[in-house]
Amino acid sequence: MRIEVICTGDEVLTGKIVNTNFSFITQKLEDFGLSVRWETTVGDDREDLLLAFQLAGARADAVIVNGGLGPTIDDLSQEIAARAAGVELALSEEWLSRMEAYFARRSRVMPPNNKKQAMLPAGAEVLDNPIGTACGFAVDIGKARFFFTPGVPRELRRMLEGEVVPRLLAKAGVQTAVYLKRFHSYGIGESHADSLLAGVEALAPPGSVKLGFRAHYPQLETKLTVRGTDMDDIRAKLAPVEAEVRKRFGNFILAEDDRTLEGVDLEALASRDATLAIVETFTSGLIASRIGHLPGAEKIVRRGIVARDLGDVCETVGLGRAHALEGITRETAEAVAQAAQRNTGATHALAVLIDLDEGADRIEFAGTICLAIATGHEVASRRSRIVGGRDWVRLGAVEMGLDCLRRFLQGLPVTERIDFEKAEAPETVRASPR
Amino acid sequence: MRIEVICTGDEVLTGKIVNTNFSFITQKLEDFGLSVRWETTVGDDREDLLLAFQLAGARADAVIVNGGLGPTIDDLSQEIAARAAGVELALSEEWLSRMEAYFARRSRVMPPNNKKQAMLPAGAEVLDNPIGTACGFAVDIGKARFFFTPGVPRELRRMLEGEVVPRLLAKAGVQTAVYLKRFHSYGIGESHADSLLAGVEALAPPGSVKLGFRAHYPQLETKLTVRGTDMDDIRAKLAPVEAEVRKRFGNFILAEDDRTLEGVDLEALASRDATLAIVETFTSGLIASRIGHLPGAEKIVRRGIVARDLGDVCETVGLGRAHALEGITRETAEAVAQAAQRNTGATHALAVLIDLDEGADRIEFAGTICLAIATGHEVASRRSRIVGGRDWVRLGAVEMGLDCLRRFLQGLPVTERIDFEKAEAPETVRASPR
Repeated sequence: MRIEVICTGDEVLTGKIVNTNFSFITQKLEDFGLSVRWETTVGDDREDLLLAFQLAGARADAVIVNGGLGPTIDDLSQEIAARAAGVELALSEEWLSRMEAYFARRSRVMPPNNKKQAMLPAGAEVLDNPIGTACGFAVDIGKARFFFTPGVPRELRRMLEGEVVPRLLAKAGVQTAVYLKRFHSYGIGESHADSLLAGVEALAPPGSVKLGFRAHYPQLETKLTVRGTDMDDIRAKLAPVEAEVRKRFGNFILAEDDRTLEGVDLEALASRDATLAIVETFTSGLIASRIGHLPGAEKIVRRGIVARDLGDVCETVGLGRAHALEGITRETAEAVAQAAQRNTGATHALAVLIDLDEGADRIEFAGTICLAIATGHEVASRRSRIVGGRDWVRLGAVEMGLDCLRRFLQGLPVTERIDFEKAEAPETVRASPR
Repeated sequence: MRIEVICTGDEVLTGKIVNTNFSFITQKLEDFGLSVRWETTVGDDREDLLLAFQLAGARADAVIVNGGLGPTIDDLSQEIAARAAGVELALSEEWLSRMEAYFARRSRVMPPNNKKQAMLPAGAEVLDNPIGTACGFAVDIGKARFFFTPGVPRELRRMLEGEVVPRLLAKAGVQTAVYLKRFHSYGIGESHADSLLAGVEALAPPGSVKLGFRAHYPQLETKLTVRGTDMDDIRAKLAPVEAEVRKRFGNFILAEDDRTLEGVDLEALASRDATLAIVETFTSGLIASRIGHLPGAEKIVRRGIVARDLGDVCETVGLGRAHALEGITRETAEAVAQAAQRNTGATHALAVLIDLDEGADRIEFAGTICLAIATGHEVASRRSRIVGGRDWVRLGAVEMGLDCLRRFLQGLPVTERIDFEKAEAPETVRASPR
């Protein structure tokens, strides 16, 4: 089945907004084993919209159109859809009363120009939008079924999953259920992950599990798209594959599905009634900002401390400036973490100290990271060197700090080598003191 | 002149990467007074590439193609360009020797598959790429001039500005120079800015200045695209308009052109040999992380402190927990900022305290922000209420903190009402104590 996407609107065409709706649509379809073959972006222009609809209607079996369903005069999708389908616009009484109820629930009167949103091509099938006034609809143009969706991202997302994807799967003759299993990891590059997982798909019947990756430094998302007759069948097919992925990735899996690294950290701390202090240097608050605003963090994140000078760091956690004389080492990081834990009264402290290279911000620019995690009775630390420019070092250090905290809380070694760090002489890579 | 863009590559088509190259291209062209009329995305597929080139070549006067110039077998742009243009591929000796020199400078031998990058459609014009091995080129297909550009963003950016835009302007018959003037503001919404600046274009000769906006909450970018015979002419035409924009926006302009809010803050502090301490609550380090990692900040950002509990905040800055009994008020924020300044030895302290509403994260979710800036001898503060969900409150508070710091350092009032805050009863909006 050939699927195309048409994105509409001057804001997208002029680049005022980046077209994340398109990447969302095509990723979501990929997750269900469907592929987009062609994408077209046109502005709020009658002639171009009509041509785009006609061209796609002649080439494709299914077309998803995004945007142009709003109440203002530059929203043209219904009008041009009717023209391309060769039908008139007709008032959908069903959608009009839905909209009036929508406004009534919010104690507002529907403005007259919203009525335009209930004008659909005659014979169109309504695609429900439970969270907005833009009415989705489906209609045939040329040889393709067209699905019109709203430009507001959260409305698009809901309609795509709830209304469009099921119809596409039915049209594609996919009688099966589809499920997406996701693993999030830190420290394994995409090509390394690809070779690590070679052959895992073969643990399920041919064609039932598809492996894919999405890299967004520093994390990697590994995706298994599973097809089956129903969820029981899917679970049976997925079980040996997901077990093998967990085995091969081992300690590098930081979270699965919708969970996040910072969420896992927070839950692990909450489950033991723990509290956390975070000491940062060059990351300047970015580690604390990943976790400190989450719901529930107000009871757990006891303190965040930022200082760029190592003497200041030591003094602030009650160590005395003399401790800074040693420079940034694993020992200093351990001393800082232990002092921060004592000094703030938190049960756990994470200290991430960074020794930046001198010089300009180039791809060869590097930083040495010494981090430690301390409780009242134990401490773990690691040293690592990351190359790739100031931002690369900064973002890598944030992720390494949060991931080592996860490892510590899960009883895993914090010193496993990752793909993003530069190898150092062996004597600087001590065994973990734990 | 009708301009189209064709983006190529499976990674873009499947949404593995968001198509920021397209928004960059179209924004850049807009900045020069050129408009993109139509965009097409296709994968690394011979049939689709050929069709896309033919369709665009039949419709447009100029087409920018992005991607597919790499050394691997799935990079097909040169091959399909030659086929669409009806010519053979020919080795560009010029580009081959450029590539060999490129590798030699890096003390590496050119891998054999890079030779493919020097195979161009016969008769193509080379578009220089001084920072990579992908050779840009221009060729006629149908009635359009096609410009082929690399997918690597920094190579695209350089080639677009240096090679493509000048050729497009020449082709469009634009004999004039074009200049883009930008203003960054915080606190004025886009529609408000649009009405505030009504008529400013008329202060320059007709057609010489075009006004545009790009909103990225919490900041707004206001753009003046100016055309003239040369830079002297442009400066003369721009002068009355930019003066009027500055007058009408007044204190709300936080930076111009490539400068940033955090950069302006840092420079203002550096210019007076000042140092800064930042105290945060719900923003959890996000304010410090905006400024603390910048080059030069290591001498200025003395301390960042994060605590979610007001008693902890007070204790950490040496105030004593009793100060928390009053709750989050302007007076508390002032006391915290003054204590943080004294306690850290910084010359300036910024404290941003946030009282979040109870309940679920909905669009109606709000937070009350009380912030203060203190030095050894003065203090300024403001109170504000922002509605729009947890993230909206958090990002708004970060920007408000950094912008009030700018205002304080520039001797401007920190209490001017902004468009993003909810009005409160007058008695809670005190005059600034400064």
